[in-house]
Amino acid sequence: MRLKAFAFDAYGTLFDVFSVGALCEQLFLHHGVMVAQLWRAKQLQYSLLRSLMGRHRNFWQLTEDGLVYACKSLGLELTRHRQQQLMDAYLTLDTFPDVSPGLETLKQQGLRLAILSNGEPDMLRAAAQHAGILPLLDEVISAEEVGTFKPSPRVYELASTRMSLAAEEIGFVSANSWDIAGAGSAGLTTFWVQRAGTETGEELGFPANHVVRAITDFSRWSG
Amino acid sequence: MRLKAFAFDAYGTLFDVFSVGALCEQLFLHHGVMVAQLWRAKQLQYSLLRSLMGRHRNFWQLTEDGLVYACKSLGLELTRHRQQQLMDAYLTLDTFPDVSPGLETLKQQGLRLAILSNGEPDMLRAAAQHAGILPLLDEVISAEEVGTFKPSPRVYELASTRMSLAAEEIGFVSANSWDIAGAGSAGLTTFWVQRAGTETGEELGFPANHVVRAITDFSRWSG
Repeated sequence: MRLKAFAFDAYGTLFDVFSVGALCEQLFLHHGVMVAQLWRAKQLQYSLLRSLMGRHRNFWQLTEDGLVYACKSLGLELTRHRQQQLMDAYLTLDTFPDVSPGLETLKQQGLRLAILSNGEPDMLRAAAQHAGILPLLDEVISAEEVGTFKPSPRVYELASTRMSLAAEEIGFVSANSWDIAGAGSAGLTTFWVQRAGTETGEELGFPANHVVRAITDFSRWSG
Repeated sequence: MRLKAFAFDAYGTLFDVFSVGALCEQLFLHHGVMVAQLWRAKQLQYSLLRSLMGRHRNFWQLTEDGLVYACKSLGLELTRHRQQQLMDAYLTLDTFPDVSPGLETLKQQGLRLAILSNGEPDMLRAAAQHAGILPLLDEVISAEEVGTFKPSPRVYELASTRMSLAAEEIGFVSANSWDIAGAGSAGLTTFWVQRAGTETGEELGFPANHVVRAITDFSRWSG
């Protein structure tokens, strides 16, 4: 099966969510790492819990909710101003160094490229614009369109629908093992990016079809 | 509204899931706490992820999957024998000290008592039997009956169905804030047990109707 397109997870895969750590440390001395980690963990957990509760809120709101929880539980004061600064930082996250060259190479090879993310559309576009990768993307596909979150198959099915391709013709790329399991369960061809190389796969079935160390490592599947 | 019944979450509320910690420490010297914490976190996370993926496995299997992941990611060898010992420990978890006296008092007041848990029915019955509380329970209600997990409203609705009561006539008791939000969203009257008193509520809406410090603190709502 020759792949026709690649769909990329956004947070943790293209954008480094822990690049907010420096600002967290500046605002919450000695607690920056804890805030950043708990913030991210809660953002993800809330996406799952709310999906299952049937009480959807968009990912921007969940990101805010996660930040509020992280500060409360660590006993840190989240002023309006701090909250604004930290939420703004989510719109200007760093990309990993392999992202731009990797996407450019794939684009030159004639592949269609998309983001497929839980992120709310405006926050995805802002981050992609800031990173300079928006012109490389044919589609920015958000879970918001179906009102639930990954790993629901309804989200992964959006990639096929929006790009008019069979699921297996789409290479789905994520650094999150649970996201790889969800996409594999929905029939996409999965590429797990292990930038550290020491990641442990989740016990969810549907192991990755391919494991790569960077987004620049795709040429042998797409050429 | 006078309550007619109490439904209790099991793991973390009646049964102390961290009572496996001593055995973890014995089997994995200096890593016991990490194993116990990661095991529990993954068991919960997998219940959410698999529910959303539509790839159900029962809670006994998820407990095993969580243990396997915890050991792999910490680089610890999980032999067959160790796995057996640790899984067996889940059938003989300690109860918190307020559990037996609390349930006995409510039972004497004529209230119907139930477990409402993600747990697989056999594992719930084994733990309740070991703890000596099985004779106090009118119902042991498992999420397994609907093939999805809390906080799906379908699980909480089982309490009404099985006890032929309106949702708000049932007091739902949990030490897990996310579980309180799920039950509240489904219309039950919620009691959040804060044994430490320093717990932070999740940012999920549906705050607890009541907050108590122990299961022995219910007399003023049930009398």
